[in-house]
Amino acid sequence: MPVNLPQIDPAQLHAVAGVRWGIAEVGVRKAHRKDLSVMLLDAGASVAGVFTSNRYCAAPVQVCRDHLAQGSDVRALVINTGNANAGTGAPGLAHARQTCEALASLLQCAPAQILPFSTGVIMEPLPVDRIVAGLPAALADAQADHWLKAAEGIMTTDTVPKAASRQVQLGSQTVTITGISKGAGMIRPNMATMLGFLATDAAVEAALLPKLAKRLADASFNRVTVDGDTSTNDSFVVIATGKAGNLPVTELDSPEGEALLAAMSDVARTRARAIVRDGEGATKFIAVRVEGGKNADECLKVAYAIAHSPLVKTAFFASDPNLGRILAAVGYAGICDLDQGLIELHLDDVHVVSQGGRRAEYREEDGARVMAQSEITIRVGLGRGDAAETVWTCDFSHDYVTINADYRS
Amino acid sequence: MPVNLPQIDPAQLHAVAGVRWGIAEVGVRKAHRKDLSVMLLDAGASVAGVFTSNRYCAAPVQVCRDHLAQGSDVRALVINTGNANAGTGAPGLAHARQTCEALASLLQCAPAQILPFSTGVIMEPLPVDRIVAGLPAALADAQADHWLKAAEGIMTTDTVPKAASRQVQLGSQTVTITGISKGAGMIRPNMATMLGFLATDAAVEAALLPKLAKRLADASFNRVTVDGDTSTNDSFVVIATGKAGNLPVTELDSPEGEALLAAMSDVARTRARAIVRDGEGATKFIAVRVEGGKNADECLKVAYAIAHSPLVKTAFFASDPNLGRILAAVGYAGICDLDQGLIELHLDDVHVVSQGGRRAEYREEDGARVMAQSEITIRVGLGRGDAAETVWTCDFSHDYVTINADYRS
Repeated sequence: MPVNLPQIDPAQLHAVAGVRWGIAEVGVRKAHRKDLSVMLLDAGASVAGVFTSNRYCAAPVQVCRDHLAQGSDVRALVINTGNANAGTGAPGLAHARQTCEALASLLQCAPAQILPFSTGVIMEPLPVDRIVAGLPAALADAQADHWLKAAEGIMTTDTVPKAASRQVQLGSQTVTITGISKGAGMIRPNMATMLGFLATDAAVEAALLPKLAKRLADASFNRVTVDGDTSTNDSFVVIATGKAGNLPVTELDSPEGEALLAAMSDVARTRARAIVRDGEGATKFIAVRVEGGKNADECLKVAYAIAHSPLVKTAFFASDPNLGRILAAVGYAGICDLDQGLIELHLDDVHVVSQGGRRAEYREEDGARVMAQSEITIRVGLGRGDAAETVWTCDFSHDYVTINADYRS
Repeated sequence: MPVNLPQIDPAQLHAVAGVRWGIAEVGVRKAHRKDLSVMLLDAGASVAGVFTSNRYCAAPVQVCRDHLAQGSDVRALVINTGNANAGTGAPGLAHARQTCEALASLLQCAPAQILPFSTGVIMEPLPVDRIVAGLPAALADAQADHWLKAAEGIMTTDTVPKAASRQVQLGSQTVTITGISKGAGMIRPNMATMLGFLATDAAVEAALLPKLAKRLADASFNRVTVDGDTSTNDSFVVIATGKAGNLPVTELDSPEGEALLAAMSDVARTRARAIVRDGEGATKFIAVRVEGGKNADECLKVAYAIAHSPLVKTAFFASDPNLGRILAAVGYAGICDLDQGLIELHLDDVHVVSQGGRRAEYREEDGARVMAQSEITIRVGLGRGDAAETVWTCDFSHDYVTINADYRS
């Protein structure tokens, strides 16, 4: 059961002019699952991607980077679930390329105009023949209003599809932004998503898109974590089809740039948080805000130390205000000259720790009251500066162990 | 149930001349538990300590460092369980000092000759009155053959006491080494133990002891991890009483120094591994060996990334050879210029990955055979140099969640 994640209303999920999705069942790993999705782009779309920082990146990630670097007009994305095509060596790379070639042949374009994505079990040979054989069915299914179906088509251990949509005025034009994402385990930056696809019909100068993609990732997918495991396959792709008819956005700090960035960030953040709300075994949604750092980097170190601590996460699962575990995580986060005498800790509105020690006024029942909630904010003050950062995570439950002990079976 | 941890034979646990232990039940947190231990040292013992790297170190750790820095003859160590006296601010520091003063008064020595230790729940006020009131009972209990009772006296979530003993010839003298340790959760370097006390009757030059303690810690407690949480209270203390009558050891690379280091390392490593074997919820004991690194630091980075991955640990719990999760951890360990095409992976004798990809000859049933064992070695080759390091860890089970969701209740 995801944490406070309302069901998606298909009527609220706007099509994006210039984008169609087709989905097929090809039995990559299991039968009767939507496991192959193709995203078709009209000519002229701009595409940028942000990919995993994992040095063991998957074959499709390597091919994506290669194809994007060639700067060809991207015409299609092809995504399979059930198999990550990672840790598969040279044959894996050949399989990713073969998938692109097959789709390029069907679309009568060059293989470099195709971006491949895979997600699922690592280190198993990709059943490329079944994927290639299923491409025509996926193409035949292609429609502009298949965003929800695509959100289902990229799910693995997710319990619900994840999608969001916004419309915003740019000059005299209304532009649409719609995105989908998947991921419930092996989730932490950079990248955090596993897979995220965000499209707008706004016109955005191609040279600006990579910068926009990075800004969006840092505000969303690069701020969530479920288990601290950075996947081999994480990919976040931003597409601007240019069909809305607005004057192309050339700068992020123009009024139009700011409006577009705000709306796209909203969609990206909603979906990034949806990944945490649907984190494997999650029963609680936790925001970790660290303030008073010298810089963003040290705030993030502390926030992730808290968000990754199995002891903190199991205490939240138990609704047990065993908050000393948070202090321990602050202490081992890696700030060498941290002064514990300056640390402040709040749990929502409850002031727990002042000047490094438990406050005399703190009552355990106040901590327990907040811990019983399904949404909680941990707020840590470092007393060293003005920087602040927030990351989102979930608790650590019996179901996480069950899901990951059984994932392949 | 600890993993392959034989019951301690009290006859194999040698007393160390110049050391006596006294244990009492004072109800620090719960009634009817041995929760206060005093280690009494004859005059003239050398003492060195290695303490947590956690910046949020507990009050007793701060007092220990202070007292050791003063260089006074240490005459006693006092250890309570049930309360870590960490995150307790200025009152906590006062409580640790008050404990030392009370014991010093009973022993007619200076407070700086006492070292205090606490372990248990963080951020709760230390019931210092009950501890002080219990000191006479602990002193009345003091005996040279109470090592096993002391090993029980320092347990928290441990399921079994941890102790080991060796004797070794130094010149014409037989010297004895005996150590105890505790710790089952919030375990990772540096330090890893929570608490470890290792004593020998060998004479060791006082100036050499801190170096010896660091070498021992790096070979043992600094190479184990249960959950990656570095505790606020980790302390490892090495004591040389000098009662054996050997010529004082002045260098570690002398024949006597090497013999003593080897025997002490053996005791320290046995007890460090015992902590992992008794790790919270552990069902498997896992050695992670990383070879072919450029230096020890990058080998340790990779080894700990594997050893801390919840996905790797749950797969081992399930005996599921989902070994791609190990590759993912290798990739995100933080070696920026890692070449995935050079990675090798063995599971015990089974060669799984060669040149970064799954070997065609690898059969899942071979991986499954090794995964079914209770002791497993993961061996990763990085193909970058000659450095190698090993760390020890355990799997991640439902019981870990249960223990840590219920720990305080």
